[in-house]
Amino acid sequence: MTGSSTAQDRQASPIAPATGKLGILTPGLGAVATTFIAGVESVRRGLSKPIGSLTQMATIRLGKRTDNRSPLIKDFVPLANLDDLVFGAWDPIPDDAYTAAKKAGVLEDRDLEPIKDFLSTIKPMKAAFENKYVTRINGTNVKTGSKREQAEALRQDIRDFKAQNGCDRVVLVWCASTEIYIKAGPQHATIEAFEQAMDASDEAIAPSMLYAWAAIMEGCAFANGAPNLTTDVPALLELANQKGVALSGKDFKTGQTWMKTIIAPGMKARMLGLAGWYSTNILGNRDGEVLDDPASFKTKEESKLSVLHTILQPEKYPDLYEGFSHVVRINYYPPRGDNKEGWDNIDIVGWMGYPMQIKVNFLCRDSILAAPLVLDLALFSDFAQRAGMKGIQEWLSFYYKSPMTAAGLQPEHDLFIQQTKLKNTLRHLMGEDQITHLGLEYYA
Amino acid sequence: MTGSSTAQDRQASPIAPATGKLGILTPGLGAVATTFIAGVESVRRGLSKPIGSLTQMATIRLGKRTDNRSPLIKDFVPLANLDDLVFGAWDPIPDDAYTAAKKAGVLEDRDLEPIKDFLSTIKPMKAAFENKYVTRINGTNVKTGSKREQAEALRQDIRDFKAQNGCDRVVLVWCASTEIYIKAGPQHATIEAFEQAMDASDEAIAPSMLYAWAAIMEGCAFANGAPNLTTDVPALLELANQKGVALSGKDFKTGQTWMKTIIAPGMKARMLGLAGWYSTNILGNRDGEVLDDPASFKTKEESKLSVLHTILQPEKYPDLYEGFSHVVRINYYPPRGDNKEGWDNIDIVGWMGYPMQIKVNFLCRDSILAAPLVLDLALFSDFAQRAGMKGIQEWLSFYYKSPMTAAGLQPEHDLFIQQTKLKNTLRHLMGEDQITHLGLEYYA
Amino acid sequence: MTGSSTAQDRQASPIAPATGKLGILTPGLGAVATTFIAGVESVRRGLSKPIGSLTQMATIRLGKRTDNRSPLIKDFVPLANLDDLVFGAWDPIPDDAYTAAKKAGVLEDRDLEPIKDFLSTIKPMKAAFENKYVTRINGTNVKTGSKREQAEALRQDIRDFKAQNGCDRVVLVWCASTEIYIKAGPQHATIEAFEQAMDASDEAIAPSMLYAWAAIMEGCAFANGAPNLTTDVPALLELANQKGVALSGKDFKTGQTWMKTIIAPGMKARMLGLAGWYSTNILGNRDGEVLDDPASFKTKEESKLSVLHTILQPEKYPDLYEGFSHVVRINYYPPRGDNKEGWDNIDIVGWMGYPMQIKVNFLCRDSILAAPLVLDLALFSDFAQRAGMKGIQEWLSFYYKSPMTAAGLQPEHDLFIQQTKLKNTLRHLMGEDQITHLGLEYYA
Amino acid sequence: MTGSSTAQDRQASPIAPATGKLGILTPGLGAVATTFIAGVESVRRGLSKPIGSLTQMATIRLGKRTDNRSPLIKDFVPLANLDDLVFGAWDPIPDDAYTAAKKAGVLEDRDLEPIKDFLSTIKPMKAAFENKYVTRINGTNVKTGSKREQAEALRQDIRDFKAQNGCDRVVLVWCASTEIYIKAGPQHATIEAFEQAMDASDEAIAPSMLYAWAAIMEGCAFANGAPNLTTDVPALLELANQKGVALSGKDFKTGQTWMKTIIAPGMKARMLGLAGWYSTNILGNRDGEVLDDPASFKTKEESKLSVLHTILQPEKYPDLYEGFSHVVRINYYPPRGDNKEGWDNIDIVGWMGYPMQIKVNFLCRDSILAAPLVLDLALFSDFAQRAGMKGIQEWLSFYYKSPMTAAGLQPEHDLFIQQTKLKNTLRHLMGEDQITHLGLEYYA
Repeated sequence: MTGSSTAQDRQASPIAPATGKLGILTPGLGAVATTFIAGVESVRRGLSKPIGSLTQMATIRLGKRTDNRSPLIKDFVPLANLDDLVFGAWDPIPDDAYTAAKKAGVLEDRDLEPIKDFLSTIKPMKAAFENKYVTRINGTNVKTGSKREQAEALRQDIRDFKAQNGCDRVVLVWCASTEIYIKAGPQHATIEAFEQAMDASDEAIAPSMLYAWAAIMEGCAFANGAPNLTTDVPALLELANQKGVALSGKDFKTGQTWMKTIIAPGMKARMLGLAGWYSTNILGNRDGEVLDDPASFKTKEESKLSVLHTILQPEKYPDLYEGFSHVVRINYYPPRGDNKEGWDNIDIVGWMGYPMQIKVNFLCRDSILAAPLVLDLALFSDFAQRAGMKGIQEWLSFYYKSPMTAAGLQPEHDLFIQQTKLKNTLRHLMGEDQITHLGLEYYA
Repeated sequence: MTGSSTAQDRQASPIAPATGKLGILTPGLGAVATTFIAGVESVRRGLSKPIGSLTQMATIRLGKRTDNRSPLIKDFVPLANLDDLVFGAWDPIPDDAYTAAKKAGVLEDRDLEPIKDFLSTIKPMKAAFENKYVTRINGTNVKTGSKREQAEALRQDIRDFKAQNGCDRVVLVWCASTEIYIKAGPQHATIEAFEQAMDASDEAIAPSMLYAWAAIMEGCAFANGAPNLTTDVPALLELANQKGVALSGKDFKTGQTWMKTIIAPGMKARMLGLAGWYSTNILGNRDGEVLDDPASFKTKEESKLSVLHTILQPEKYPDLYEGFSHVVRINYYPPRGDNKEGWDNIDIVGWMGYPMQIKVNFLCRDSILAAPLVLDLALFSDFAQRAGMKGIQEWLSFYYKSPMTAAGLQPEHDLFIQQTKLKNTLRHLMGEDQITHLGLEYYA
Repeated sequence: MTGSSTAQDRQASPIAPATGKLGILTPGLGAVATTFIAGVESVRRGLSKPIGSLTQMATIRLGKRTDNRSPLIKDFVPLANLDDLVFGAWDPIPDDAYTAAKKAGVLEDRDLEPIKDFLSTIKPMKAAFENKYVTRINGTNVKTGSKREQAEALRQDIRDFKAQNGCDRVVLVWCASTEIYIKAGPQHATIEAFEQAMDASDEAIAPSMLYAWAAIMEGCAFANGAPNLTTDVPALLELANQKGVALSGKDFKTGQTWMKTIIAPGMKARMLGLAGWYSTNILGNRDGEVLDDPASFKTKEESKLSVLHTILQPEKYPDLYEGFSHVVRINYYPPRGDNKEGWDNIDIVGWMGYPMQIKVNFLCRDSILAAPLVLDLALFSDFAQRAGMKGIQEWLSFYYKSPMTAAGLQPEHDLFIQQTKLKNTLRHLMGEDQITHLGLEYYA
Repeated sequence: MTGSSTAQDRQASPIAPATGKLGILTPGLGAVATTFIAGVESVRRGLSKPIGSLTQMATIRLGKRTDNRSPLIKDFVPLANLDDLVFGAWDPIPDDAYTAAKKAGVLEDRDLEPIKDFLSTIKPMKAAFENKYVTRINGTNVKTGSKREQAEALRQDIRDFKAQNGCDRVVLVWCASTEIYIKAGPQHATIEAFEQAMDASDEAIAPSMLYAWAAIMEGCAFANGAPNLTTDVPALLELANQKGVALSGKDFKTGQTWMKTIIAPGMKARMLGLAGWYSTNILGNRDGEVLDDPASFKTKEESKLSVLHTILQPEKYPDLYEGFSHVVRINYYPPRGDNKEGWDNIDIVGWMGYPMQIKVNFLCRDSILAAPLVLDLALFSDFAQRAGMKGIQEWLSFYYKSPMTAAGLQPEHDLFIQQTKLKNTLRHLMGEDQITHLGLEYYA
């Protein structure tokens, strides 16, 4: 009895090594992308630590507790090395990464100035962008032509970037704004319908979808950091499977939703009831401004609201979780800049129905929380594709507010189950036993 | 590939059924014990729900996600039925359970009055109690004689209770106060030394140890709801192994520490650093008064402080967790009565070292959170013993601030690992596959 | 030098004594009105204290600090006695005061049951009510006919109530819902225009105005507890001056705005700057439901937003207060019922521009805070009218979110200036020196 | 009727003009003093604003509201100009002001570097210091000899500073640490006893008293920013009156106590009851370290606890304020540095005894709040002395946690009464009417 699965569960297939350069291209060169790029460069120069990144800092326990085998993930799994990363971006605003980072106001001068030389060289390519999908932003650095033409131009951008930088592989991580709410329709049902809609510049094809299509066509993994529909449609899922491309999304799980997927599982673990959960956010960055538009907010709200029901399963626990109130508000409040703040009031119910309250005030920093996720998703997506995994990467649910899952499955929102899934997937891919925390052998 | 362990990990040995009556004896008939008893009776009469109790309300997933097998734990595992429970208690204050509950002020009249008849019949037996171990309490309903004589009297109490109530089995759950801080010494090293110390009324033998010794000698499982040393000494562990008795402890994990073992794993899952964690509590019940004595507080503080280091592993993650400040304060503040309130300020560190803050304000109810734990521990301890498990029940770590573990092992404080351990233990004992959340089969 | 004004500032004119019964009629018999009535009756029976009421509990310092003259206000000023109060109400929902109080869920059974006999006798008269002004409420207990006819019927109600109860005097205090936002127009410019608009059932004449017109015509003081425009129009101000009627309003200052008018003056006293103030509320009572309608919320929001600018005077202190963000949100959140909760985040600025934050979490009870205001306004309005004061009672600004003031004056929002104004007005009316807190005489 | 006092209340005596240079000497050159000096210099260079300073930023209303006369205080009252200020200090640690400011970590480099030249020239004189009065600090830059000899050396320091800098006048503002708790004894009863005790180096004479004695002997006003006893003894009060010296103290009112004296008056204004007030602080600067010593904490605690009783007057309002719990805690918590944080939980009581809660979380900056107080106290103390005011300056209570008052008077803690007192004193001294906020003339 080992407290772990046996060898026959293990994957045998070889994983291609992470040789050569890996290009990371981000649609969006705003607060998140520049904080990500600045941080990686700063780490490469030995000026800071990649805090918040599992690929760089986390260990993974292998075998029994008393085996004392806990290598760093990056020593256990063949990931691209930070020194091999090359960065590029698209943005409707033509600022280079240094200028954009200064405007974003996330990083302080003492962190930006030492790498100004590097950041200044990163200039955004022309974006596939339309104001009607993100009404609060206007930009001049944009592509023209039909949606199909823009998508083809994006493919060319990827090929050019790869060639100019000598990249072996490229991944895309969406770091741009939340688009207005779009539902999957017939235009997204098949590859053919999708491409016809691109040809017709159909409005159901949002700009983010053009990036996703281009990425898949070029064989690049795509990770979706916004709640936009993007790849979560049959046409692009099918295309990714055909092309052997790894996809994941949607919406980086930072700040309040991250906390929610920590506390809700804790409450449920103890079978405490929930009468209501009120969440409000104040933020003053471009993201806040974009979400001040009700159409963009709806996309975000859908992403944020789904979390609790899936974790708490009211259908299975009606006495505890049926009919709770769940209110989520986001308010544009300029004094805070990127320093998003959340306040949650949670009305819980205990033994014999007695009410209690938990209030969580989170003074966070949006881009500081998101940046390491960009890094991890880029490296893990690249790794997954080299390991032969294609389509939805459910094991990366850990990073998302609205994880994509196979049709018919509920998304998993519990951060700790997501973590177990992620780590057991790594163990499995590398031929190690899975961990179940049984551990009865110590008390035989 | 099943995302779970295989059949050879499964336990085959039969578990004795839960037939007949189960006596639950609590040292202490104060806020926690009366809330527990009142709640069980109220549930038996259909007046309330046993919210917070895993044995009564939780389900357990068996097999694959898509198997849709999630029975209630109580339908899966042979636990004693609520209708078969009989209650008894010891307390230095002679109030019956109804009077004690009224004084405790936890439950409202609308919940107490309908079961006054029942509660009034529960009168505490004379306690083994000495004011010097709990300086803020004085009581008249106490045993006299040497420590050995008191311990023998406790054994007789247990036998009498069993006979008078026709119990098949009895378990003890400590629901009394925090004693002054005691370190394990030579008096606790062996069974012989322990019994000699009892004969000599040695001051190293705290009253709680007399209950534990009596319970073990009578073959009764013992669960320790306070941070007192009690059974966590070689002498009593050895005795329990000899007698086939299940032990668990120490210190019910409610309120602030429960939250801490939810949030710290969440922070660590994401590899965010910690600069400091300041926790303060205000409470106005007897517990608050007892902890206003520095000697009792020290016992509690040790229990509360250990949690973070074990979860965060600063030795493994020096860049993230070395040298954080951890301050825990408890303040006696009468306006609140049993409605304990905690305020935590958590200084976390993100990408490139940027600081963020989380503040948690928990308006909880001490006894409401503790009562279902008493029930679960009584039922699971009884079950464990019937399943042939003896000595430390590490799988019940889920319920404790300072889990007892085998020598040489670190206690596990992460609530979610504790939960996995508990559920996988149940699966294992009942011959089911363990869950690893791998789930790659859905994406084959 | 006395630290106070001299005798020539004092009023000489006699004040009519408070003989006979005083009728208090409230449009609205919901949470606020029933809590008010239940409380007064409970105080009369010696069952509770009128906490929160200046007329019942506050003292007023007279003369020098060392004179030790601080009588209760009610012993200093001739106010109606609680035993002389008689209650009546109008409401579109026909529940009697006991039933309405039970539904409101503010008071617990232990406070309601002992006075059930009394409350059950108070049945609401038919209301002048139209759903279009308060869209979330529907009621059957309503008057019909043109607006003029309804207004005349209200006058008849007042006369009948006075006769049936043998009242010497009657005052009206608006305790009903927030109406949709209405701006003063030509219909409110003159008495004639107003009455013609009533005849025409013009939609600019909201139901609350009918009550106000009826009250003034009957010589009854009117206090406006909602942000509705009501008496704050030239026509009704003129009519009140003609009829010698005392008016005050608008919108009871409870909860969050009360706190705001405490903290903002404190910040300004110290010349600390303000970058932003974010206020959110959660409440689950009828008020919350009504304010969930954007049109009603607009009325309330106007009332809540004006407070800060008037206190902070950005035009006078541009370096400190120009351009701060002020966001106010109200969210309907059923779990809380009447227990409204506010959360404020205040971004302040100190020496050399360094930012600091104040966060205020107020777990309040809406009707508990409003009830003593109803009492004070009824008694002070009655007193003012007996003292020959008519039209706007600026000295009662203390009780309102949007104090009515003479044309050309800024409303005063600072709670402490409001308090000084109120108390110095009482001193003045009773011929006592005003207090200036100079007090240099002690250091001569 | 003017809503103000009449001319006979006005002071006629002339006030000496603020000609020449004013020296400001601070015992202590730590976080507070360096933040103060850096700020003044920064303001003089046009680099920042003196936010938080009444002498620099506040206006004062004169006459009727509609007179629109609200000059800046500094344009109304003859105060020393910022350009005429000269700075000096004593400190047991020999760091110059630039080095000390860097170590304090209050101001950021962008604010310190531009004035490094200036700050570097300010080097502390040898301090009268003894480790036994401030146990957590050790310093080498200290005077030797008997207490009398040290005091005489301080007088010589003052004379030298005055001569070297060509100062017309000098004031002292205590900006150093909290000393251990000392009660007034026979050594402080008369000038003679005090001086004999200095001769004998009696331990009842704390170092702070030596500074105060030296200041008074040299005719310098003394403002006491710590809770130390210092000048609050008969001997030094008598000496100050003899020498015509203005005194004020004790303990700068910043942070949590400042908030307390805002909120408590607000609660009392509305006659809401208080069941308890729990205050906790976390801070990580030198002040926090000093207060970690129980003897220093006791001095501070006395200062902090007195506030509520004096404001709320439980003897006058037993139904509201008798027997409330008041707990104040200060915790040394290094992650925060100078960024002190307070958390208050306030249990208030409303209508019919219903409980409510207010929670205030104040993320403040200790020295940022204190620095403008140093400036105001220096300028106002100098002004007062020029205006012929000597001994206790009660009108400066506004700035202190424990205001000094004439024997037999209660200190005034209500921030708003303190503000009225301060402003009416200025009006009085300058021959203007006092403001009473009556304002009935607008409604004649």
